[in-house]
Amino acid sequence: MIKVQSYIKGEWLNEGTETDLISAVTNEPVAQMVEAEIDYKSALEYARKVGGPKLREMSIHERAFKIKFLGQYLMERKEKYYEISTHTGATRKDSWIDIEGGLITAFGISSKSRRELSDLPWHVEGDTERLSRKGTFMGQHICVPRHGVAVHINAFNFPVWGMLEKLAPAIIAGMPVIVKPAPTGSYLAWEVFKDMIEADILPEGSVQFIAADKPGDLLNHLISQDMVAFTGSAVTGKKLKAHPNIIANNVPFNLEADSLNCSILGNDVTPDMEEFNLFIREVSNEMTVKTGQKCTAIRRTIVPENLVDDVIEALKARLEKTTIGHPAEKETRMGPLASNLQAERFEEQLQQLSEITETAYASNGKQNGAFTNPRVLVCHKPMQVDDIHRLEAFGPMTTVMPYKNTQEAIDLANKANGSLVGSLFTADDEIAQTVALGCAPYHGRFMVINRNSAEESTGHGSPIASLVHGGPGHAGGGEELGGARAVLHNMQRVALQGSPTTLRNIVNQHIKGAETEESDKHPFQKYFEELKIGEALTTEKRTVTDKDVEEFAELSGDHFYAHTDPEAASRSLFGKIVAHGYFVLSATAGLFVDPDEGPVMLNYGLENLRFVAPVAPGDTIQAKLILKRKNVRQQKKDDPFPFGVVYWDVEVTNQEDAVVAEYTILTLMKRKNKLPIDEQ
Amino acid sequence: MIKVQSYIKGEWLNEGTETDLISAVTNEPVAQMVEAEIDYKSALEYARKVGGPKLREMSIHERAFKIKFLGQYLMERKEKYYEISTHTGATRKDSWIDIEGGLITAFGISSKSRRELSDLPWHVEGDTERLSRKGTFMGQHICVPRHGVAVHINAFNFPVWGMLEKLAPAIIAGMPVIVKPAPTGSYLAWEVFKDMIEADILPEGSVQFIAADKPGDLLNHLISQDMVAFTGSAVTGKKLKAHPNIIANNVPFNLEADSLNCSILGNDVTPDMEEFNLFIREVSNEMTVKTGQKCTAIRRTIVPENLVDDVIEALKARLEKTTIGHPAEKETRMGPLASNLQAERFEEQLQQLSEITETAYASNGKQNGAFTNPRVLVCHKPMQVDDIHRLEAFGPMTTVMPYKNTQEAIDLANKANGSLVGSLFTADDEIAQTVALGCAPYHGRFMVINRNSAEESTGHGSPIASLVHGGPGHAGGGEELGGARAVLHNMQRVALQGSPTTLRNIVNQHIKGAETEESDKHPFQKYFEELKIGEALTTEKRTVTDKDVEEFAELSGDHFYAHTDPEAASRSLFGKIVAHGYFVLSATAGLFVDPDEGPVMLNYGLENLRFVAPVAPGDTIQAKLILKRKNVRQQKKDDPFPFGVVYWDVEVTNQEDAVVAEYTILTLMKRKNKLPIDEQ
Repeated sequence: MIKVQSYIKGEWLNEGTETDLISAVTNEPVAQMVEAEIDYKSALEYARKVGGPKLREMSIHERAFKIKFLGQYLMERKEKYYEISTHTGATRKDSWIDIEGGLITAFGISSKSRRELSDLPWHVEGDTERLSRKGTFMGQHICVPRHGVAVHINAFNFPVWGMLEKLAPAIIAGMPVIVKPAPTGSYLAWEVFKDMIEADILPEGSVQFIAADKPGDLLNHLISQDMVAFTGSAVTGKKLKAHPNIIANNVPFNLEADSLNCSILGNDVTPDMEEFNLFIREVSNEMTVKTGQKCTAIRRTIVPENLVDDVIEALKARLEKTTIGHPAEKETRMGPLASNLQAERFEEQLQQLSEITETAYASNGKQNGAFTNPRVLVCHKPMQVDDIHRLEAFGPMTTVMPYKNTQEAIDLANKANGSLVGSLFTADDEIAQTVALGCAPYHGRFMVINRNSAEESTGHGSPIASLVHGGPGHAGGGEELGGARAVLHNMQRVALQGSPTTLRNIVNQHIKGAETEESDKHPFQKYFEELKIGEALTTEKRTVTDKDVEEFAELSGDHFYAHTDPEAASRSLFGKIVAHGYFVLSATAGLFVDPDEGPVMLNYGLENLRFVAPVAPGDTIQAKLILKRKNVRQQKKDDPFPFGVVYWDVEVTNQEDAVVAEYTILTLMKRKNKLPIDEQ
Repeated sequence: MIKVQSYIKGEWLNEGTETDLISAVTNEPVAQMVEAEIDYKSALEYARKVGGPKLREMSIHERAFKIKFLGQYLMERKEKYYEISTHTGATRKDSWIDIEGGLITAFGISSKSRRELSDLPWHVEGDTERLSRKGTFMGQHICVPRHGVAVHINAFNFPVWGMLEKLAPAIIAGMPVIVKPAPTGSYLAWEVFKDMIEADILPEGSVQFIAADKPGDLLNHLISQDMVAFTGSAVTGKKLKAHPNIIANNVPFNLEADSLNCSILGNDVTPDMEEFNLFIREVSNEMTVKTGQKCTAIRRTIVPENLVDDVIEALKARLEKTTIGHPAEKETRMGPLASNLQAERFEEQLQQLSEITETAYASNGKQNGAFTNPRVLVCHKPMQVDDIHRLEAFGPMTTVMPYKNTQEAIDLANKANGSLVGSLFTADDEIAQTVALGCAPYHGRFMVINRNSAEESTGHGSPIASLVHGGPGHAGGGEELGGARAVLHNMQRVALQGSPTTLRNIVNQHIKGAETEESDKHPFQKYFEELKIGEALTTEKRTVTDKDVEEFAELSGDHFYAHTDPEAASRSLFGKIVAHGYFVLSATAGLFVDPDEGPVMLNYGLENLRFVAPVAPGDTIQAKLILKRKNVRQQKKDDPFPFGVVYWDVEVTNQEDAVVAEYTILTLMKRKNKLPIDEQ
């Protein structure tokens, strides 16, 4: 039997009070939780002193690779997790959301971080801010790892996803993590965590695990560099958020609470339309997947008043086909709730709701233990009954609510005072706009489905690594995920000020105006590793002729009057013939490109180009390339050799030293050496 | 005499309890505060029902123009504010920071918003996220105005800046504002507010003003769409942050509290170096400007242990020359504190500090009323004395602290547990990097000064519109300003999901993959107003020839082997001769440009270009331009005609319909019509 133990300061704590953890399926113990005495203060200090510094030595990309490799290691062991997951009541499909969904989320955050964040221990955020006329005093935002611990208090319903969606971004940010899962289902989180330790991929002190009912005096020892992310009930969440020590130290506290999410059927939809069936499928899926134990499930089904009966009938028809049973059996569509306790709570919550709703559907025969039936309730006056937008029953249920017109549908959606997600099924994009924008301030995510998007839709209930997850008000007011945002949430943003050269020397990225060093040989003849931030190439000069402009018009086919017709050009903004912007770009490339074979593979992109001033025949242009930043790329199977991406700032000036164009080019440069990341 | 009245629901409340507001200079009443009975619940509802909807009708750019025009209106009246400001104890220079500094901040946020945010009521944030293989289901983040009120509780020390730095971003975000200034100095905030109402630039219900000692039961009536920004003492701020209703509704609460900011003298600096003098000047300025009543002032002066005496002597020498007196007099360098009460508190705080410090300087003779002398304290064992990093004296003082080595300097800086700002004076960029990165997680802003940046530096104490203001831990954990971030802080981020066409129809910006409509005439022949989102131009095709590539190499001067040397090219990534990327760009322009005169003025930029696949001789390219988004520009004096910026997505494909290049071009398009913004 699994012994769920705490992992504190690099040690498994195998002595303590033992509590049985009960299978939702068999009602028998499936694991034991060993609740040891934990010195939380020293656990936090260990994370800050050991894990933090080791993580901060690495670049964001290196940390992101660690998460990728860790995910791969765990993915190879997924079948073991599926087996254990059955005991939480999860069907194969339910477990997929938790296990593979969690791993895909970790991969997604890792890949987004490598694409969008700096390959440095910190992230250089946004453009340099010019703070002075002559440019000797500038500003640059960077985001740095905080010098504390990320404490994650997780909910019972997604033991794996819930752990990984928070852990991955924190580690990539450079923050050591202490995970405190809910006891229910903690044996699954623990199994994954144990493999994480065995994998030996993350540095010492990066992660710790608390096997306990409550996190003791942990919060009392938090300092201002720490942070907390809590997922679970609003009541507990708000209590912790107002914890005296959290308030006293202004510890960032991210609260993600269950919310009364809704799905709306558009006013344009009739029962014969595809969107009607898509809506019914979505609502019944959201009721039964994970036996309705999802913080994103559709608790409120908002439909045009003339379609209430059609919707209920259609839901009934689908739900009647929902086979309830042992989650490991193939034909099972819905397993039990996570525990007998959850089943009792669900019945209590339904009892409360019975005072303000009618039950429209509650069949499927009698159930035992943690098993329960799906219920469809209906509330006929939802604009008058506030509690229907507040009381949550955490199981396979939804309440159908009629609306009169589109504005009332929006008002109903928003009466929940903030939700994680809302959705709308409509074939009419005007309704889509009205409803989506009307609901937007009250939602963290809002999905609109029609026949075109349904097939590939990831579903109402699925948080996505690249999209933010969280919601205002009742949903907790927090924000998680959202691609690189997930990582930045874990970091401290600081505005640096100083001379451009000093800023460059602090942040390790070229800052406009910083001193540069002319390269000793053509930089395109250097390997990735040999190239240095601030390394520069100043080109020869070229005088643009009338013939250049004429020939370029001919060759490109661009005969715009400002380049070709002197009379019309005299009426233009420039008052005379000017060279094509693309000629300036092309001639500049001619000035800076080294024709010979070498480590440069190709120019694969260009960013932030501005044609600052016109270039006319007779003007002489010259360019300066400055190495701005570098990102290592992992060598994949089909890559002929290892390489990295190099960003070059290009400044094109004229004979008066005035800038005529500026932009950044991206080149791929061969590496001399393989790195550990290439071997994976 | 000024009667500081509340402005609630569009009415001045001129009846209520009257309290004298005392001049810090004359000790005589300079104004009266009329504390009326306010129905806060209905004031909040009025803002939500009247102000919010009117603001949300406008685009972010329109709201930003309102702020710009409001700032211009107020700037014309600045001399009146200077006169009133004297009574707060402010010298002309002090008042400049508050009055013009506040207006410049509003202008800065307005201009950044117009440059970086969408010209729509909401902001379309970041790239579209591809969520599906075929691209029929996509994600797009937008930031929308919340449907609530922004409540601003401001500190006494910057009546104008404190009001405008919060009000401008909130209004631009589309949030109505209720301002509650501190009573001390509220007559100055009120005078500016009164002009704001007289200007009649903001829509009805956008702004309200509370003249009161405490904000009554205001916080009890906040709902989850509202938000609070508090500036002031940490004690009050934390109490409000934990207010039961704030917690219950997860009302976003931004806390910006005074902090024990430090400035560090680098280990490399000797008294004969310019950086030494720059450091002394900065510390003494920060002590005396606003009589030391700045949340960003340098309370801790951290210096190499062997330079303690030199620093104290140099500070003394400068401070002795600080003329204290009537703030309106020309020779005055430092006026009184804001009130007798502030002076008493300052003395009490110094008294507390006297137990853990020695006084190194406290001269300048006896002072009366709110007038006080600058003090230099010294704490010899600052690593041992924790309270020196916690206790703040809010007046013209600093404590000198010795350090042994650079790491100890960092540790001392960070012992304040989070500050708004820190600074470092050094000529050594290695020290700059070590200290700036070591201090970064504990600071919202960090400034490094040397002889190159000093002349143009905006100073340790000055928050800047384009840089974030706020700090972790003791400084409150909040974040304000930071350019467009300031506006986004006031908005709700929501992830929209759906088909690309539906998303386009919701957000009013082209989404990759959305249906397009072929333009009825060449879109460059249309005026700005005539152009529609999603309007497209599909070009003719062009087959690239060997001759094209040869001629382009000749004309551009770019003879890179992959374009010119068949044998070497066979060893390249592509295995054969390929066309120059810049040729593809140029030929594409040739395909889409209309040669005739018309509303298109110029292509002034290009963004996010990626060469996705190579183009070789024999390949046939074709391009599609799709109108992505539009921004109106204000016609300035030197513009010949009104215009706007139009962003076009360009997709270049080959004969197999595979994308070879994609990018966005920016064109300036003439407008047919002038707009109200052009008349300003």
